[in-house]
Amino acid sequence: MAKQANKNEAITARDVDFAQWYTDVCRKAELMDYSSVKGFIYYLPYGYAIWEEIQNYLNKRFKEQGVQNVYLPTLIPSSLFNKEKKHIEGFAPETLVATIGGGERLADPLIVRPTSEVLFCDLYKKSISSYRDLPKIYNQWCSVVRWEKTTRPFLRGAEFLWQEGHCLFETKEEAEGNALKILDVYDELGRDVLAIPFIKGRKTEHEKFAGAVNTYTIEALMHDGKVLQSGTTHYFGQGFAAAYDISYLGRENKLETPHQTSWGVSTRLLGAVIMVHGDDNGLVLPPAVAPIQVVIVPIRQEAPGIKEKCLEIKNKLTEMGVRVLLDDSDRTPGWKFAQWEMKGVPLRLELGPRDLEENKVVLTKRVNGEKISASIEEIEQAIPEILRQVHVDMYEKAKKHLESKIDEASTIEELNAKLENGGFVRMAFCGGMECEDKIKEITKGGTARCIYKESAPEGVKCPICGKPATMVVYFAKAY
Amino acid sequence: MAKQANKNEAITARDVDFAQWYTDVCRKAELMDYSSVKGFIYYLPYGYAIWEEIQNYLNKRFKEQGVQNVYLPTLIPSSLFNKEKKHIEGFAPETLVATIGGGERLADPLIVRPTSEVLFCDLYKKSISSYRDLPKIYNQWCSVVRWEKTTRPFLRGAEFLWQEGHCLFETKEEAEGNALKILDVYDELGRDVLAIPFIKGRKTEHEKFAGAVNTYTIEALMHDGKVLQSGTTHYFGQGFAAAYDISYLGRENKLETPHQTSWGVSTRLLGAVIMVHGDDNGLVLPPAVAPIQVVIVPIRQEAPGIKEKCLEIKNKLTEMGVRVLLDDSDRTPGWKFAQWEMKGVPLRLELGPRDLEENKVVLTKRVNGEKISASIEEIEQAIPEILRQVHVDMYEKAKKHLESKIDEASTIEELNAKLENGGFVRMAFCGGMECEDKIKEITKGGTARCIYKESAPEGVKCPICGKPATMVVYFAKAY
Repeated sequence: MAKQANKNEAITARDVDFAQWYTDVCRKAELMDYSSVKGFIYYLPYGYAIWEEIQNYLNKRFKEQGVQNVYLPTLIPSSLFNKEKKHIEGFAPETLVATIGGGERLADPLIVRPTSEVLFCDLYKKSISSYRDLPKIYNQWCSVVRWEKTTRPFLRGAEFLWQEGHCLFETKEEAEGNALKILDVYDELGRDVLAIPFIKGRKTEHEKFAGAVNTYTIEALMHDGKVLQSGTTHYFGQGFAAAYDISYLGRENKLETPHQTSWGVSTRLLGAVIMVHGDDNGLVLPPAVAPIQVVIVPIRQEAPGIKEKCLEIKNKLTEMGVRVLLDDSDRTPGWKFAQWEMKGVPLRLELGPRDLEENKVVLTKRVNGEKISASIEEIEQAIPEILRQVHVDMYEKAKKHLESKIDEASTIEELNAKLENGGFVRMAFCGGMECEDKIKEITKGGTARCIYKESAPEGVKCPICGKPATMVVYFAKAY
Repeated sequence: MAKQANKNEAITARDVDFAQWYTDVCRKAELMDYSSVKGFIYYLPYGYAIWEEIQNYLNKRFKEQGVQNVYLPTLIPSSLFNKEKKHIEGFAPETLVATIGGGERLADPLIVRPTSEVLFCDLYKKSISSYRDLPKIYNQWCSVVRWEKTTRPFLRGAEFLWQEGHCLFETKEEAEGNALKILDVYDELGRDVLAIPFIKGRKTEHEKFAGAVNTYTIEALMHDGKVLQSGTTHYFGQGFAAAYDISYLGRENKLETPHQTSWGVSTRLLGAVIMVHGDDNGLVLPPAVAPIQVVIVPIRQEAPGIKEKCLEIKNKLTEMGVRVLLDDSDRTPGWKFAQWEMKGVPLRLELGPRDLEENKVVLTKRVNGEKISASIEEIEQAIPEILRQVHVDMYEKAKKHLESKIDEASTIEELNAKLENGGFVRMAFCGGMECEDKIKEITKGGTARCIYKESAPEGVKCPICGKPATMVVYFAKAY
């Protein structure tokens, strides 16, 4: 079986070629496959299941925030799409446009949604008339299409899966509160589910979303020192609502324009999980999203009692709600070890004749290779606890890496030198668009990831223009 | 608040204008709203939540059958789409075609998926090489686009939500078994979740899916006597696989072509729920999919203790996992009764000062208006049991209606006369395509919904061509 043997081949080492390592992991861990159209991928069961776990968590957390799920059309009439000028500038070059329906040319071509702001505005325009109709806190799970030139699985695709929340509120305070609260939910998704410590904060003027008043972000540090923007929330002010004629009769009996937010995370998070946790043996998955949390590998499975005991353990764990797989295929244990390591299963459970005699199993943590011996009776207590510990181990490891890669600079030369090493570098500057352009140019791609402090120490000047610095910002090179 | 008052207006009676009644319910129960493009609708929270409950149930049931969820692209290259001739004939006239990407004309235009057979074939072609790679039992939740001329919310749309399973097996038996097993799951979705009794069976040659060897279906009877095809499963044989060059090395070390199935249900099921259970007061929702299962309406809520007790009951029910809403708005109880009746909430709980004194509540079943008095202490036991009973009441009511609308005919005149009254009419015929065409013509739209018996009694002739009848079929007029 030539195809299966490939899965067990060594993958490119991260330090040899990180990009190739990434692609190897995506393909060999069977997270995705390429379709015949550039940038469109097949999400395979093992990758899609991770996304489903993220969905489950977020749906629960969103519900606590009063979020209601809806579904809006895949297609946006171009006449509607063209209403908000700033919005168009951001997306127009990337649109895919349908021009033929049922064999006939469409009078108003349809844009395959790159994002659904304008549809939500269209819906809200019809459904809001009084302050009693507010707030509207809607979210949609869907795919979006952006005609990107350079694409990479999960990180940048012509199509990706995401959730997009679009909300209306009476006041600026409520709306900003929503944008910040959802940012916290995303941050907690990292901390409690993906085992990823995010840097979170507000975007600079230069980096914020087209048309937004404020954009907030969570940024994650990848193994190679580059940074991945992993989710954003936006406070739009009243601009979109005004452009799309959304108004309501307020408490004072006057026509008012609502305050709007939007927020989203996407399957890009799978890219973050791969690049934060993965190692030279392949994927390393946090237990909360791992499609298989425990893999049972029998040693000398033909020996009496081994398969039976493994099956018994499997059934017990399944009953407890642990996602478990018993690999009783005819491969060697060594092959299975390598295979499930590559697929990033958080915990391996081995059971051989000697273990059976001693009434114990050997558990191995994927994250650090740590081996734990547990008596078979203890398993029900031990495994959930060990999985919790695996999560902590992974989070702490990622956090240590992140912390070791946060530095500071006070001159552009220092920034430039330090960005060469990857990671985040904090620097005070004036916050101006042009200075940020220059920083990007000089550092060959260093961008403001988010604001660390909304003020700068007394007397500090912008290293570019020499005017007083107004903020301290995390700079980094990003995906 | 003019807009809100509308919701409480009477809706068209079913017997006056069933189509208008249907539209009224869709709109006034806030299941959906129209978008600005014909046939594309906004799925509002109240409608989408019903779909989410259907998804939850099916995902659980699919998992028992070894189904794995995946996600494939929204767009299909036309070159790939055009490979399977029979398939194309069915879908080509309804396609929406994207011709411009990133401002440039596409060399190979992209079809917005009307169904994903060809993408699954493309994926399988790459991922199957040995019998060890089989079976593949994949499913996808997504939306599909079909450029329909006549559209109605949920029943026929330019875009709708569905799940599409596409599977490969080594043998015909496994594949047919899969198609039949999933048909059972759909049937049980009706029985246990939607409270809809389906007629299930195989489609005739005339009605089966383009390119399938066998199509199986679940058909539901609507209140107006018309029938709605509510889900189908297909056994494709090896045709698609051969057309798309899918083969594998079999157990005998020879190249083999796999056997294929596909199956799906869609948001059309929401249409079925509306038209099977709804009445002149609006929607009637089965408890298993109702976004709100119990609505609490306080009577004289300003009286001491009322609101507090209502809140206490609400919290208790919420803790138990019951989906409950306390309507403590400043509307009158009468308005609230009408409102929540229209939205089809299965159970209403009233509590007024006298009830509080007597330590009881009044529960009213939406399906039949039956009132039950329950002591407040009993509520935790009573409500889950009453909700179960509501489900049974709804199922029995629908079943009684269905059974009263199944008739038999032995001549075309009899069939024609009986189809006038709506419902299913069983008749033996030869099974031929041309005879079925004639039956449709004579009865002005009567079609074979599915096969009742795969043989006909000795000596019975086809009422159209006079040849021996080979099967007994359910005929009906369908949506």
